[in-house]
Amino acid sequence: MKLATYQDGSRDGQLVVVSRDLALAHYASGIATRLQQVLDDWNFLSPQLEELSQTLNHGKARHAFAFDPRRCMAPLPRAYQWADGSAFINHVELVRKARGACVPESFYTDPLMYQGGSDDFLGPCDDIVCASVDHGIDFEAELAVITGDAAMGTAPDAAIDAIRLLLLANDVSLRHLIPAELAKGFGFVQSKPSTAFSPVAVTPDELGDAWRHGRVHLNLESVWNGKRVGLCDAGAEMTFHFGELIAHLCKTRNARAGSIVGSGTVSNQDWSRGYSCIAEKRAIETIEGGAPKTEFMRGGDTIRIEMKGADGMSVFGAIEQRVAVAG
Amino acid sequence: MKLATYQDGSRDGQLVVVSRDLALAHYASGIATRLQQVLDDWNFLSPQLEELSQTLNHGKARHAFAFDPRRCMAPLPRAYQWADGSAFINHVELVRKARGACVPESFYTDPLMYQGGSDDFLGPCDDIVCASVDHGIDFEAELAVITGDAAMGTAPDAAIDAIRLLLLANDVSLRHLIPAELAKGFGFVQSKPSTAFSPVAVTPDELGDAWRHGRVHLNLESVWNGKRVGLCDAGAEMTFHFGELIAHLCKTRNARAGSIVGSGTVSNQDWSRGYSCIAEKRAIETIEGGAPKTEFMRGGDTIRIEMKGADGMSVFGAIEQRVAVAG
Repeated sequence: MKLATYQDGSRDGQLVVVSRDLALAHYASGIATRLQQVLDDWNFLSPQLEELSQTLNHGKARHAFAFDPRRCMAPLPRAYQWADGSAFINHVELVRKARGACVPESFYTDPLMYQGGSDDFLGPCDDIVCASVDHGIDFEAELAVITGDAAMGTAPDAAIDAIRLLLLANDVSLRHLIPAELAKGFGFVQSKPSTAFSPVAVTPDELGDAWRHGRVHLNLESVWNGKRVGLCDAGAEMTFHFGELIAHLCKTRNARAGSIVGSGTVSNQDWSRGYSCIAEKRAIETIEGGAPKTEFMRGGDTIRIEMKGADGMSVFGAIEQRVAVAG
Repeated sequence: MKLATYQDGSRDGQLVVVSRDLALAHYASGIATRLQQVLDDWNFLSPQLEELSQTLNHGKARHAFAFDPRRCMAPLPRAYQWADGSAFINHVELVRKARGACVPESFYTDPLMYQGGSDDFLGPCDDIVCASVDHGIDFEAELAVITGDAAMGTAPDAAIDAIRLLLLANDVSLRHLIPAELAKGFGFVQSKPSTAFSPVAVTPDELGDAWRHGRVHLNLESVWNGKRVGLCDAGAEMTFHFGELIAHLCKTRNARAGSIVGSGTVSNQDWSRGYSCIAEKRAIETIEGGAPKTEFMRGGDTIRIEMKGADGMSVFGAIEQRVAVAG
């Protein structure tokens, strides 16, 4: 099933079930009003939502209406946890190579992951509001999962079973603020503003054969200012699968229902597939020509992030944002 | 007023108002059931809670009962944000001096802060469950604030006005996992397990004159295995006040209601005041004698963290935890 959260003026919005083709939606209010509520009580509530989903897909839901992604908040407008991995080691290799640094051997066995702010997510069509273009505004096209409860010490394979929903993320980054925060070693606070998520979150079964052992074997498309800049395979080159990322997160603590875990920038070794963040394009330019040529985003720039299934249909709907520079 | 969250089998517990002397409590259920709900709608709900608080303090609340901290969850059992500063630069100086590193000049103007996990907090009397003593289990006695909404770009002085509640925290740290995570630069994921909080959170007015311009001028006491090891002044030497910490957090993004912001380990230049974390004691030993002598916590160890007001009464109740080593 596919779930979304409609704006209703409240902080958590209103849960809706969305049809597989993203054409129709139906309020879930007879079952649950908020997505977190469903995650808190998944075994009881999700079968009821599945039933509504099937009725909707068969065109038999009596109060269905046209689904409008512009009315969406993030599926979880705020969450108790957002932990973003860097599971595509090719991204790390590229960025490091460009600055003449090597990749420590441990990075191939121990995932990079940072704890992000989760109190104020952006909806799929919300503006990326930044104080200044001097911060080096970049998009990062990613996949993410929303988990149920995963106890401390959960093993990677078992952690796959804790995945309830998948969605897309735009992990907006302020590149020029990153070096100073990296040097402090305490992770990202100012260099990672609000993350945006796709209109819908979907259960793994919606991906069919493309969902295999914690990886999504589909292409993630990034369109910057109307031009496709990336069509990257999100599956084969994901060094750490989502179960491994969740296991990393809950090595010394529990991860509770509603935790969102991100893949990091989707990245492929074949440069002809393009890029899922500008930093990578700049890294390639630096490796090839000694310096970056492509500038980061400016006010008015647009970014569109979408993933299509084997049938050519959009799985999650599109993240479609515009950069708005405040002041 | 003083607020606490009672265990009731649910993930968010049940909001109670607690009397100033921590003797009595009263369910707030006629007004609100969960603390986050109050923070989401502070201006409407907090005056009603204040009224109940006054009735309770005057001994006139009809359904009051004896307050039992052992029945408490963290005031916010889970939160949308936990950002922990390192506002006592003396702590940073000590730890760095012990390992022969200097403190960069920028640390005196730009606070250290990490984003922590906030999906699974511990109550004041919950066990600190760790997989292994080899991780170097340490307590960190801290103050923290819970905020209302603070918009991107809020200035330090204005950010003080966004503070709704204060409380104590035990930011449990796994010291032997920290160096590797620091080296990765992405912050703390595995080295910071669940944080515990004091039984009650209090509005700033409960601190009277001790609350001055974003700092709490009272002593924070740490008792390890029954022995007082620290009685540190939480006010004068706090390099960055809570308004500055909140402003740092929301430089590039909004901080939404219910964000918890921590002070970091309370630390004084006068070593005779003791310590609020074992790492600091070990740093002093290293500076004085070349090597640490004090071991980190073991299974069965206890830690008690409390702060008393000018009247000698406990302000927040005590964090009283025991280390339980799993397996």
